[in-house]
Amino acid sequence: MVNIAILGYGTVGSGVVEVLHMNGESISKRCGHDINVKYILDLRDFKGEPVENLIVHDYSIIVNDPEVKVIVEVMGGVEPAYSFVKEAILKGKSVCTSNKELVAKHGAELLELSKAQKVNFLFEASVGGGIPIIRPLNQSLTADEIEEITGILNGTTNYILTKMSSDNADFDTALKEAQAMGYAERNPKADVEGFDACRKIAILSSLAFGMQVDFEDIYIEGITEISDIDVLYAATMGASIKLLATSKKVGNRVYAMVAPMLIKPTHPLFSVNGVFNGIFVRGNVIGDVMFYGSGAGKLPTASAVVADVVDAAKHIGTNIMTFWSSRKLELTDIKAVEHRFFVRIADCDDKTKELIQETFGEIEEIKAEGRDSDYAFITEFLSEALYEEKAERIGKTLNRIRIMF
Amino acid sequence: MVNIAILGYGTVGSGVVEVLHMNGESISKRCGHDINVKYILDLRDFKGEPVENLIVHDYSIIVNDPEVKVIVEVMGGVEPAYSFVKEAILKGKSVCTSNKELVAKHGAELLELSKAQKVNFLFEASVGGGIPIIRPLNQSLTADEIEEITGILNGTTNYILTKMSSDNADFDTALKEAQAMGYAERNPKADVEGFDACRKIAILSSLAFGMQVDFEDIYIEGITEISDIDVLYAATMGASIKLLATSKKVGNRVYAMVAPMLIKPTHPLFSVNGVFNGIFVRGNVIGDVMFYGSGAGKLPTASAVVADVVDAAKHIGTNIMTFWSSRKLELTDIKAVEHRFFVRIADCDDKTKELIQETFGEIEEIKAEGRDSDYAFITEFLSEALYEEKAERIGKTLNRIRIMF
Repeated sequence: MVNIAILGYGTVGSGVVEVLHMNGESISKRCGHDINVKYILDLRDFKGEPVENLIVHDYSIIVNDPEVKVIVEVMGGVEPAYSFVKEAILKGKSVCTSNKELVAKHGAELLELSKAQKVNFLFEASVGGGIPIIRPLNQSLTADEIEEITGILNGTTNYILTKMSSDNADFDTALKEAQAMGYAERNPKADVEGFDACRKIAILSSLAFGMQVDFEDIYIEGITEISDIDVLYAATMGASIKLLATSKKVGNRVYAMVAPMLIKPTHPLFSVNGVFNGIFVRGNVIGDVMFYGSGAGKLPTASAVVADVVDAAKHIGTNIMTFWSSRKLELTDIKAVEHRFFVRIADCDDKTKELIQETFGEIEEIKAEGRDSDYAFITEFLSEALYEEKAERIGKTLNRIRIMF
Repeated sequence: MVNIAILGYGTVGSGVVEVLHMNGESISKRCGHDINVKYILDLRDFKGEPVENLIVHDYSIIVNDPEVKVIVEVMGGVEPAYSFVKEAILKGKSVCTSNKELVAKHGAELLELSKAQKVNFLFEASVGGGIPIIRPLNQSLTADEIEEITGILNGTTNYILTKMSSDNADFDTALKEAQAMGYAERNPKADVEGFDACRKIAILSSLAFGMQVDFEDIYIEGITEISDIDVLYAATMGASIKLLATSKKVGNRVYAMVAPMLIKPTHPLFSVNGVFNGIFVRGNVIGDVMFYGSGAGKLPTASAVVADVVDAAKHIGTNIMTFWSSRKLELTDIKAVEHRFFVRIADCDDKTKELIQETFGEIEEIKAEGRDSDYAFITEFLSEALYEEKAERIGKTLNRIRIMF
């Protein structure tokens, strides 16, 4: 039997208890040990609930109990999670976490520490909810040099964009619906402005390239500027707008960004709709692979946490090597990164049209129904810097979305 | 340094050497050891090629060399692969294989043997080429009870069906093109009649349900009867025809089958086109996940084999537990399995139409352009047995395709 403790009895924490209860028999078979929840750390008492007797309010009881071999950290946020996890590892306990803030900020350090302590720091649930992606990156794609990771890593924004497209809704209406469905928080900033996706692509990039990618270095653009007019144009082009978190090798350098982008049906991420997540990986040997599933939700996330617990329990006394050094990866300046851009300008007069044609050179004009006074077009490949310079020259408000195809 | 030997220097075997050469540095980092190819077993000499000095013709040299810790079996076929692999395991060597015939037939036994010997028998490349699916099933979906696995597991047939759909080609034309492109063999029987997909779903089902699923027990229907008329009707319904290999829990029983089926764009497998493979898994906790990538090809397959070699090298002296007992899983008789069926009958007279309506009850009629004299419809959910009984009563040739939606 392997004793574990759960820090935080919120959505994910209670999901972990539920999964261990629901599938206990098959989990024990696969693990080779029974998993026993010995403690749950929470501020609340949960009087009268089945977990009442497991609740403790004092972390030192857990961390000083030599019987506890694995700690599940599902509190979220950097502190006190970081201090708790570090102490656990130093006391020889493995840690499984769903906490993307903690992993993005302190992943490299906690991995190094756990290697030294011959324990494991596992975080499958921190990216993509239930989707197996951390373990495949660490253990399955080991023969490859990763050239690109691009993910739809945030279910809230993907739900909003899918709704805008299927219902011709504007951003505010779709956001309200997402909130009503419980897919978006009352304060949706972390999701719609891309911060959540940014933490996750930082984690994936660090694992893929084996060095620390700081999320503060990643260029972020959210979806708050995307309008129903953009969605109309996307449909006209047979494309769709997705909030993509991407990191890509160009030559020997890597760039990383989070931004809404236009993609076409030939891309595997095109059909990732609603609250689902998808993670596309390109390796120099394996070619293109994609992982798809529920990016959030109590049970899918708990499924990933429990899979980590099983792995930790199977590897007591052995570190599962993870390839993520604390050496910082210097990302390419985003200004140098090249894309094609879809650009539109409302109420465009002939003089501006001429100026655009002169400035942008070879462009592909796009017409959308009912938008006769717009001028919309796709540019050639341009660096961000060059695009900005050209856009400046036009002297009007241009809406632009980067193109993935 | 870990010494390995490769049995068979064909497409995959030479791919393994190429990958180890191309990505040697990052593989060593991820593995913690350098991987050294000490021998290659082949009947040919490869005079003048860089591998010439590694070639041996006598397996006993390899199996009796205590320096060789991992054996890569990429010869294909059951014998002599089975004897070679068994001997290797008994001599304390781990084995990595891409050989689906071997794994489907002897997987359970070789896993038990390797457990007893504290070595590993790994076979990521046997299903889905480069796509990580065996390791995720074994190590990532451990918190779940698997309810369904459905895969597009054969790139040749998926290419043919995709071509039939995109070019309005008939089966023979699409097959010839697949052969010209090198995607289909001159004798395409194993692919187009579903045998290849059958071996693969047998392996996945055994892992998912933890018991031996014999491929001989699985109902198989290939794609040779699918015509351009079926493809036309599929398009009319907004659906597409895919050769799906599926195993599914219904109550406490499991059924398994390989058959062409109609699926709609809402299903994650819908957009798996061309030679790509996709594997959809439904767990009772994680919900729906899907894995997508190249199902075949020299380098993607070699990527999976080398990832297994890395895993084997990291686990010398420790068995990675795999949940596949040799106890046979008795599958549900396919006759009891229920689907809706798309049925069409050419040159249908009014009397037959009436008989159909009388016999099949509630049906949904389908009209396709240019097929005015057909009668085509979708049935309600019917068991295979009941469908056959009803079809018999009509007394004419009915074309039918099962429906996944």
